[in-house]
Amino acid sequence: MKLYDNVVAPSPRRVRMFIAEKGLEAHGVVITRVPVDIAANETGSAAFREVNPLGEVPVLELDDGTRLRESLAICRYLEALYPEPALFGTTPLKRARIEAVTLELMFRIYLPTTHAFRHGHKFWQGRATQVAEYGALAREQVLAEWRRLDTLLADQEFVAGDAFSFADIVAFTTLEFGKPSGIRVQPNQLSLGRWNAAVAARPSAKA
Amino acid sequence: MKLYDNVVAPSPRRVRMFIAEKGLEAHGVVITRVPVDIAANETGSAAFREVNPLGEVPVLELDDGTRLRESLAICRYLEALYPEPALFGTTPLKRARIEAVTLELMFRIYLPTTHAFRHGHKFWQGRATQVAEYGALAREQVLAEWRRLDTLLADQEFVAGDAFSFADIVAFTTLEFGKPSGIRVQPNQLSLGRWNAAVAARPSAKA
Repeated sequence: MKLYDNVVAPSPRRVRMFIAEKGLEAHGVVITRVPVDIAANETGSAAFREVNPLGEVPVLELDDGTRLRESLAICRYLEALYPEPALFGTTPLKRARIEAVTLELMFRIYLPTTHAFRHGHKFWQGRATQVAEYGALAREQVLAEWRRLDTLLADQEFVAGDAFSFADIVAFTTLEFGKPSGIRVQPNQLSLGRWNAAVAARPSAKA
Repeated sequence: MKLYDNVVAPSPRRVRMFIAEKGLEAHGVVITRVPVDIAANETGSAAFREVNPLGEVPVLELDDGTRLRESLAICRYLEALYPEPALFGTTPLKRARIEAVTLELMFRIYLPTTHAFRHGHKFWQGRATQVAEYGALAREQVLAEWRRLDTLLADQEFVAGDAFSFADIVAFTTLEFGKPSGIRVQPNQLSLGRWNAAVAARPSAKA
């Protein structure tokens, strides 16, 4: 397989971290990285639009040329092929809980984090219309959500319960992606800090 | 089971439409509706925060009291219990494609539609901080995405391919939810119009 990838973007990082947690490459599954330079607008090139008309990474290309988009869908596909260790849950009920937390992280934290970056960071000046007032609002929403997660993590080890799951990958990569917008674990957020340190210490965090 | 529901919000409508498409109630599955008044801020009440701390509908409550959140997770859970007709796909590859389209609809059209509404509609005046310039930007993004879908639907019957799927439920309920923001199928969008008419004619569209 091939993974169209970018080392700084959060979405392909989810897939790399998932692949590492599953131990796929350690077990002989070959997934060749194809680097795509987002900063140089390679995702907007005609060549890349052939790979993904939406101009987004990651894309997973199977050996028969079939291409899959969207990090959540790619990871769930890989989990169907290689079930162990299960990162999406092992029963319909557990799967529903992990999916709910994952989606809430995506909608309530990840998307506003991308908005805080797009509307508030100098990287996007001249590349996109920026509405600074909205960027600041999105950033406030993200900070409130991390406070909620800090409270949640006082009672449970991981974001979707007592086991590490795909939801932790989404949360960790989202927190990392907040750094350019000044979004960080606060000194008084002890539970969030404990969780963040535990996830950062996993080998997959370097994938 | 119980479904905490609201008749005007798009997220619980996805679940009602899914239940109707699956024919669950016609086959004896009892899902009692519990109406929740969002306009009167019942979702923000202490009583409802016991049901869902995030203050969102839908919530599916199982007979043992277990509560599930997030329409996508709820529908996938019901599909695991009642597989036929399959609306999330029947193979890992088909499931990945339907999920990718579903997520792209959620991120690229549904979320910006909620933003166009929240930042541009008088309903939210005094209920939330509105940034009109951003609302207009979100609306433009949504209109561009529906143009993309119109082109896509020239070559395929449904949004994720040749079969009706959960992605069509997401697309249809999102298009309906755009109406208060003046987001509609344009007269020249013949393929989108054909698809919209076909989905609107399904009995589930009235659920």
